Amino acid sequence: MLPIQPDRFLADLHALRKFGAAGVGKGVVRPAFSEPDIAARAWLAERMREAGLSVQIDPVGSVFGLSEGQSLLMGSHSDSQPEGGWLDGALGVIAALEVARASVEAGGPPVSVVSFQDEEGRFGVTTGSAIWSGNLTLDKADGLTDRDGVRFADARALMPDRSDSFVDPSQFTGFLEMHIEQGPVLDREGDAIGVVDAIVGIRDMKITLEGEQNHAGTTPMQGRRDAFQALSRFNMLIAERFANVVTPRTVWTIGHVTLHPNASSIVPGRVTFSMQWRDGDSDRLGRMEQIIRDTAEDVAQSGGFNLTFGPMLGLEPVDMDARLRDALEQAAEADVPGRWRTMPSGALHDATNVSEMMPVGMLFVPSIGGISHAFGEDTAEADLVTGLRVLAEAVDALN
Amino acid sequence: MLPIQPDRFLADLHALRKFGAAGVGKGVVRPAFSEPDIAARAWLAERMREAGLSVQIDPVGSVFGLSEGQSLLMGSHSDSQPEGGWLDGALGVIAALEVARASVEAGGPPVSVVSFQDEEGRFGVTTGSAIWSGNLTLDKADGLTDRDGVRFADARALMPDRSDSFVDPSQFTGFLEMHIEQGPVLDREGDAIGVVDAIVGIRDMKITLEGEQNHAGTTPMQGRRDAFQALSRFNMLIAERFANVVTPRTVWTIGHVTLHPNASSIVPGRVTFSMQWRDGDSDRLGRMEQIIRDTAEDVAQSGGFNLTFGPMLGLEPVDMDARLRDALEQAAEADVPGRWRTMPSGALHDATNVSEMMPVGMLFVPSIGGISHAFGEDTAEADLVTGLRVLAEAVDALN
Repeated sequence: MLPIQPDRFLADLHALRKFGAAGVGKGVVRPAFSEPDIAARAWLAERMREAGLSVQIDPVGSVFGLSEGQSLLMGSHSDSQPEGGWLDGALGVIAALEVARASVEAGGPPVSVVSFQDEEGRFGVTTGSAIWSGNLTLDKADGLTDRDGVRFADARALMPDRSDSFVDPSQFTGFLEMHIEQGPVLDREGDAIGVVDAIVGIRDMKITLEGEQNHAGTTPMQGRRDAFQALSRFNMLIAERFANVVTPRTVWTIGHVTLHPNASSIVPGRVTFSMQWRDGDSDRLGRMEQIIRDTAEDVAQSGGFNLTFGPMLGLEPVDMDARLRDALEQAAEADVPGRWRTMPSGALHDATNVSEMMPVGMLFVPSIGGISHAFGEDTAEADLVTGLRVLAEAVDALN
Repeated sequence: MLPIQPDRFLADLHALRKFGAAGVGKGVVRPAFSEPDIAARAWLAERMREAGLSVQIDPVGSVFGLSEGQSLLMGSHSDSQPEGGWLDGALGVIAALEVARASVEAGGPPVSVVSFQDEEGRFGVTTGSAIWSGNLTLDKADGLTDRDGVRFADARALMPDRSDSFVDPSQFTGFLEMHIEQGPVLDREGDAIGVVDAIVGIRDMKITLEGEQNHAGTTPMQGRRDAFQALSRFNMLIAERFANVVTPRTVWTIGHVTLHPNASSIVPGRVTFSMQWRDGDSDRLGRMEQIIRDTAEDVAQSGGFNLTFGPMLGLEPVDMDARLRDALEQAAEADVPGRWRTMPSGALHDATNVSEMMPVGMLFVPSIGGISHAFGEDTAEADLVTGLRVLAEAVDALN
């Protein structure tokens, strides 16, 4: 068994949450390329060096701590949502750091560590690992902008000590990522560990409906082409038309809405909103996309609106590697017999991109109340340590 | 019949639009206290003096041209929307000026003229006339700020030649305001004149629904408390429940929506939106308010949302004075028999405030395509002259 040190692991985890601490519970505000994110990555690079790893920060700000020769890559991301929790991503990075430290102290097996950049999608979707895996070209990424119009190209230029080249993936035998579940299942069922069998696919696009801006007092309801009403109608129709296509695990969300001119005395003339949907089955994702496009067309034509679809970002569902998954399941059964389960990941992870280059496995620990992407996100420290132990045992067994 | 001169009236109307000309069609950019607005008011004061009226600019920049002794007050406002038309307000001011000139030349009846300040609400709502009527105290008004944070107190200080005192309303026997309709009815029906029977009342309040912010991938649809879904449900229910309460002239608008945190990968936890409704009948406005409050409660309770109502702003419907209205109707029937109608005003006007101090009457001319609060706003010059003539004939008859 690798000589992991739970106290050192927890101390580093709490040290990391000081970067961008929200001052609300353990919450953090550490979006990609923000000052706290850049400072946190410099701190991480220093911990990697102390652990005897050689640091390479790639051109987009993903931080690698490399072991010599062939190694197992472990990690996640250290950037957060605009209002994020302390464990989302950070847990996988610090657990990987501890396992790597322990294996150096034990004289192997060789483990490398990574913190990918912009997993939370300030600019794209899992941007850093998408670029590394070739799912997104650097040229295309540089043109992406965040909600304030900042370009990715300008944001990544803020990240110091970047290498000119990307890390060669051929040196890695596989990738292991530990993450909080971000859902209610493990917590509700009283399980300590979830071994992921597949990561669901995701589709995400912006839709714009343009009607007619007008005076909210003198324009009769009949004559209106009210963009908010069009959005509300679209939202209701979608729910009806999805009914016989989706499963209880399918989800869809309208999470971003921008009305123009957004004034109480003016009939809104334009709305841009996000439509995102996720499912484990590619075909279903496609059928849902068709319903979304058809419904938007129907709403636009019947109400006299101009319709524009933004580019569709998306990732296909991904199965985890059988050998890595088996090692995680055996470690879980040995450590917490009967208190673990196999489950899909409803959330997207860097592992989705990395799976195009090497075998990938993922491990979940419980999220209290299923809360995530919020300051209130948390996990019992005993569960964090259990996750670290299962991870270390699996790495041992894979050796 | 008063010796009004249509050419002189149209020439002044075109001269006024040169102040703050947008360079797009006949559009103007002349918000309250902007350089063009201040210059336009100086120009107006000069025209009033030429017409033999004594000028008094009140402490908030409303420009009065006073006739001696008891007189009928006529006018509107010469400030514009940030992107406004050339007739909104300006028409009523220049028509009043021409009628006052004609009555001086004819030796009576005595007519005074006014251009109220900030009718378009850079700082408040019909700010100048609201202060004159006592609906808004000067102290409170001075604390109001525009979108850029400029205080009303500082803005009005820019207006030269202000008097220390407000104009005494007791010298006026009534108030007549001509205005463009700002709606599609007269233009669509081919009528030349609309005699206003009432200015609709308005209610406006912000509503906040707070659910649970969560991860858009890992939170099953079942367990969600999605604030956008709650808003959409509220919007649909309102339309159903209003159905047997409203008339074809009733309007309601959700024009402002703020989602939190407004990100495509997060189930929105909170929404604040504006609910504004207008009608000519106070009781109906009250019944609608009850439906709005009950529906919001239903949505909140059934979906597990926390509900907050902001303060309700509003103005009661105002009936036009029977005698003034009768004079306008008879003049319209004499001038354009069968081509005029009685109608409510869906938009707010200075007359709403003035009605608290004296009898008021209002006259509408057609807005081409119903367009207003936009550079494209316009009215056929023949209709402008018809409006002037009907106004003059009514003033004659009232004598």
